[in-house]
Amino acid sequence: MLIKVKSQESLSQIVGKLQAKGMHPCVSSNESEIVIGVEKSLPSELIKELEEMGCHAIAISTPYKMASHAFKKQKTQITINGVTIGGKEVIMMAGPCAIESEEQLRAVAQRLVKANVKVFRASAYKPRTSPYSFQGMGEEGLKLHKKLQKEHGMLIETEVMDVRDVPLVAAHVDIVRIGARNMQNFNLLKEVGKCGKPVILKRGMSATVEEWLMSAEYIMAHGNPQVILCERGIRTFENSTRSTLDLSSVAVAKLMTHLPIIVDPSHAAGRKDIIPALSKAAVALGADGLLIEVHHEPEDAKCDGKQALLPHELEVLSSELNQIAQAIGRKL
Amino acid sequence: MLIKVKSQESLSQIVGKLQAKGMHPCVSSNESEIVIGVEKSLPSELIKELEEMGCHAIAISTPYKMASHAFKKQKTQITINGVTIGGKEVIMMAGPCAIESEEQLRAVAQRLVKANVKVFRASAYKPRTSPYSFQGMGEEGLKLHKKLQKEHGMLIETEVMDVRDVPLVAAHVDIVRIGARNMQNFNLLKEVGKCGKPVILKRGMSATVEEWLMSAEYIMAHGNPQVILCERGIRTFENSTRSTLDLSSVAVAKLMTHLPIIVDPSHAAGRKDIIPALSKAAVALGADGLLIEVHHEPEDAKCDGKQALLPHELEVLSSELNQIAQAIGRKL
Amino acid sequence: MLIKVKSQESLSQIVGKLQAKGMHPCVSSNESEIVIGVEKSLPSELIKELEEMGCHAIAISTPYKMASHAFKKQKTQITINGVTIGGKEVIMMAGPCAIESEEQLRAVAQRLVKANVKVFRASAYKPRTSPYSFQGMGEEGLKLHKKLQKEHGMLIETEVMDVRDVPLVAAHVDIVRIGARNMQNFNLLKEVGKCGKPVILKRGMSATVEEWLMSAEYIMAHGNPQVILCERGIRTFENSTRSTLDLSSVAVAKLMTHLPIIVDPSHAAGRKDIIPALSKAAVALGADGLLIEVHHEPEDAKCDGKQALLPHELEVLSSELNQIAQAIGRKL
Amino acid sequence: MLIKVKSQESLSQIVGKLQAKGMHPCVSSNESEIVIGVEKSLPSELIKELEEMGCHAIAISTPYKMASHAFKKQKTQITINGVTIGGKEVIMMAGPCAIESEEQLRAVAQRLVKANVKVFRASAYKPRTSPYSFQGMGEEGLKLHKKLQKEHGMLIETEVMDVRDVPLVAAHVDIVRIGARNMQNFNLLKEVGKCGKPVILKRGMSATVEEWLMSAEYIMAHGNPQVILCERGIRTFENSTRSTLDLSSVAVAKLMTHLPIIVDPSHAAGRKDIIPALSKAAVALGADGLLIEVHHEPEDAKCDGKQALLPHELEVLSSELNQIAQAIGRKL
Repeated sequence: MLIKVKSQESLSQIVGKLQAKGMHPCVSSNESEIVIGVEKSLPSELIKELEEMGCHAIAISTPYKMASHAFKKQKTQITINGVTIGGKEVIMMAGPCAIESEEQLRAVAQRLVKANVKVFRASAYKPRTSPYSFQGMGEEGLKLHKKLQKEHGMLIETEVMDVRDVPLVAAHVDIVRIGARNMQNFNLLKEVGKCGKPVILKRGMSATVEEWLMSAEYIMAHGNPQVILCERGIRTFENSTRSTLDLSSVAVAKLMTHLPIIVDPSHAAGRKDIIPALSKAAVALGADGLLIEVHHEPEDAKCDGKQALLPHELEVLSSELNQIAQAIGRKL
Repeated sequence: MLIKVKSQESLSQIVGKLQAKGMHPCVSSNESEIVIGVEKSLPSELIKELEEMGCHAIAISTPYKMASHAFKKQKTQITINGVTIGGKEVIMMAGPCAIESEEQLRAVAQRLVKANVKVFRASAYKPRTSPYSFQGMGEEGLKLHKKLQKEHGMLIETEVMDVRDVPLVAAHVDIVRIGARNMQNFNLLKEVGKCGKPVILKRGMSATVEEWLMSAEYIMAHGNPQVILCERGIRTFENSTRSTLDLSSVAVAKLMTHLPIIVDPSHAAGRKDIIPALSKAAVALGADGLLIEVHHEPEDAKCDGKQALLPHELEVLSSELNQIAQAIGRKL
Repeated sequence: MLIKVKSQESLSQIVGKLQAKGMHPCVSSNESEIVIGVEKSLPSELIKELEEMGCHAIAISTPYKMASHAFKKQKTQITINGVTIGGKEVIMMAGPCAIESEEQLRAVAQRLVKANVKVFRASAYKPRTSPYSFQGMGEEGLKLHKKLQKEHGMLIETEVMDVRDVPLVAAHVDIVRIGARNMQNFNLLKEVGKCGKPVILKRGMSATVEEWLMSAEYIMAHGNPQVILCERGIRTFENSTRSTLDLSSVAVAKLMTHLPIIVDPSHAAGRKDIIPALSKAAVALGADGLLIEVHHEPEDAKCDGKQALLPHELEVLSSELNQIAQAIGRKL
Repeated sequence: MLIKVKSQESLSQIVGKLQAKGMHPCVSSNESEIVIGVEKSLPSELIKELEEMGCHAIAISTPYKMASHAFKKQKTQITINGVTIGGKEVIMMAGPCAIESEEQLRAVAQRLVKANVKVFRASAYKPRTSPYSFQGMGEEGLKLHKKLQKEHGMLIETEVMDVRDVPLVAAHVDIVRIGARNMQNFNLLKEVGKCGKPVILKRGMSATVEEWLMSAEYIMAHGNPQVILCERGIRTFENSTRSTLDLSSVAVAKLMTHLPIIVDPSHAAGRKDIIPALSKAAVALGADGLLIEVHHEPEDAKCDGKQALLPHELEVLSSELNQIAQAIGRKL
């Protein structure tokens, strides 16, 4: 159940009432409203009591509540510096897997601007399967990312992996990304819930759609309504692709939530030859954006070079995607 | 390895030579050519000997050979009565899950013609999980299917489940369908290899792309080059859809084979609300056709009513799909 | 619902009554009893009417009915020539993947007798992924299998893949096997339902426990109560083994059905080094038997040599398994 | 490649040399030895140079190195206060899902001592799918866990979810647990690598065996060789159990690593009725221990009550497991 609270004053009293009933209320408070979430329905006397205090109780039958269409009919639009995610425009997000150097970052960025890219992705912290692999440039990488923004002007985003890094990361980029392996790192979700920046939440490799929305709920319930869901493939027996891009789940999720949903075909495929086909499918299906890996010298990339498009390939793809976007009444 | 044989006369001699080497040659002979397939590469002396007999040996490294792009560069086009599958046009195939009665069949067919449907699907034999469920109308259903073709004029297709039924089924319909559960019913594949009619081969629920192509190879190696692959979803942990539509595998398969590939979103989803989204994705990705379940009274359908579109919903969808087809230089 | 019918005389009348209600009754009639199965519960008036005719109606809420513990409390024991499957003894079944020659068959058989093997497995018909691979010796293989039985005295079993072969196969062996790829080849299930011999039903690679029991139900509903379930691994993302042996499902199935359940670790693992460990686990868990591939010269085997134990390895294993069987109050 | 370093003095010089070659060395240094790990093989000149400095370079072809049998032939035994994990004895670990109160903890602990339990499990921090569910008692729970140890005398273990909590958790318990959702929370793995306490590393729900060992490698490469692997089920399509217990992977992992491996049947099954069967299978297969959920009043448990055994059920099970352990030459 969700409870809309009228004013900050009565908040602690209400939270106390709920805790006294054995509940574990989460308070999501931002400039526009205060909402308290609890797992189950409240007894009718309590609802009455709360309404007398000016609250409004909303019964929501699904376990995800703030993320549910039942709570918010209208599609969430997240506008950052003139770029709107979740609106009519399909947003192209692209960039290299990892920040490797200022030269690399600049070389890719210059080309992406021409390919209609609105959000420049690049990771300073890398979750690597091996402890002996390159783990990312860390804070130095973050600074480079921010420094180059003045040149290229795109929004910038990056991954955060550690609760201790959230403030630093949020201070440097426009959008914070939670990777697939951290989709159920609940303490990290709580921290980005308080970070004040929009969050891209990748679906875990073995997460159901409902679990994905529950992780979005964590972020929202801790104060951050600006969540962008990102499908990036699930683990199956099929081995011709690294993961299986699950577009059905994107279609289903669009019926369940008001949050914007984007698609990352690069990590799903793990091979570049089918990225254009998967991107077209995602746009036709109704995805609000794409997250694509691009490298200017993929054979020398420090990670995931095999799945990175060349900048000019992205230019061609952007133009093709624009045709499909228009066919469904959107644009790129 | 594949061996193109010049003439029928030398065939048995060549087959004998191969068997003498411990091989298990399959002869695929149709009006246009004779091709023998064997599992491994032949020793060079034998290749030389065969070439002296006018044969042409083609080394193909993948286990699927006749189905491989390495054997045939050009995309296979299957033309039946003016309808071409695998060409520029995206072919809409639709109809009810099961043939239930003449009235039902007619009611659906009349509406489909208006929705740009070229192939009318309907099953007389139904693979049902329960022995106590309706098992299909059988031969009577086949006859109805054929009878109504004069009225509506669409191509007709149906499933064959039993080796003993292949001649009867092939005599009644334009296209024979192998269901997902029979993708590795190898004797059935051999029989449809000899049936003389194009075959839709659905991917098994836990089949890899390579296994899917190997099953196509069975049909081709027994004489039938007219195979249409059909993706219909794979089994995964995700339970918001009945199966997980694996469009990545369609994209990969298009790089591996020259055969046309269509997509069945209805069985993948198991729910009708996301059929339009999945269909759009499939067309944008490059599918050569769609196989969609439609019923005029889905709540009374004898099976799978939950996933069937209403005829007028298909009309709307066809028109939307046409927009997307045009955006990628095709048409519906 | 299941209906026990008193006598053959009233049978067709009762079937007619059920069909008139739109049902699809299956009659399972053997020497000991006549049972009719229908998908749903009957209306109470009809139940009353049937009981007046001497029938006994049994409501069973699961979709599998004859296979359910609700229908038969006691564990099914299948006794063939003094060997009881489903009793106190854990039955060892072993042999080569394929029948290759009389010499091979004899060489393996002689060694298995010493390893406490009660059922000699060997396939004359082989479901092979490639049409160009060895497809089995067919009828000639069946004859060899039967011929050697006089020498070694074990029960013999083999796979049947084709509805047309069922009578021939059933005439040659003691136990008929349905392979994983045919678990939902429903017409084949119907045929073995009428074959008069016990049937080993392997679980499909992507079949749920319920679907597995539904396939057993097909065999039972067509007259054959002698079904032995066999777990052989399911398809998952894990690639260190060919399939993932799903012992949890064996444990669950034992709670759902009265049928005996055996385990095939060889096809699950696809590698011989973990066969002993998996076999021990299966016996400790409560499996009624094991189905293990053994070859005297695995490096020369025509198929699946990598997963075959050597005969002396099976001897050692049998002795170890006997210790575990005794620890749980059984024996090998 | 692994490099055994003779003395602390030369360490920084060697690390510098490796970094200069573009490598990302990890130093694992504990009282007994100093080992540096790098991803790839070193050039032969560098190996020669290092050997002249008294180092010993060990080529290991698998991506996991310190965890590999190629590095350490002998099975790792972890002895804590007289209890040895990885030795002849199969170690029973049990306890409630969550620490709920002092009374609850004491009530369960008193009963477990009688059931031959050596390690008392209980979580103070709970990774919950919903932000509105009970999230654990936190530090207060840790203190209760430690306080009661004086009464019952068992070793105690608990989960750590947050890098910031590692020192606190390690100070309170004998064994630290990494949950399935955090198996690839690499920064958490690094922190427990430095915590000085043995670590139970649960396999992720969609992790391959190799990825599981790579996560163990993270912990080892950051200084902690005391890793206990724990299989707890993987995500598959099968829905009769919450996860699919993958005992094949345990058998495979035992061939790949020297680390002890235990099995958690409770989280795999998600239902208590098959816990005894799965536990028996795990012991027979060769697991070094079991991790089982027990609650004295499961219907009132704050989480996962459905899968918890009653204390007296565990007593019965322990005695049965002892029989099986003895049958394979071990004991419980």
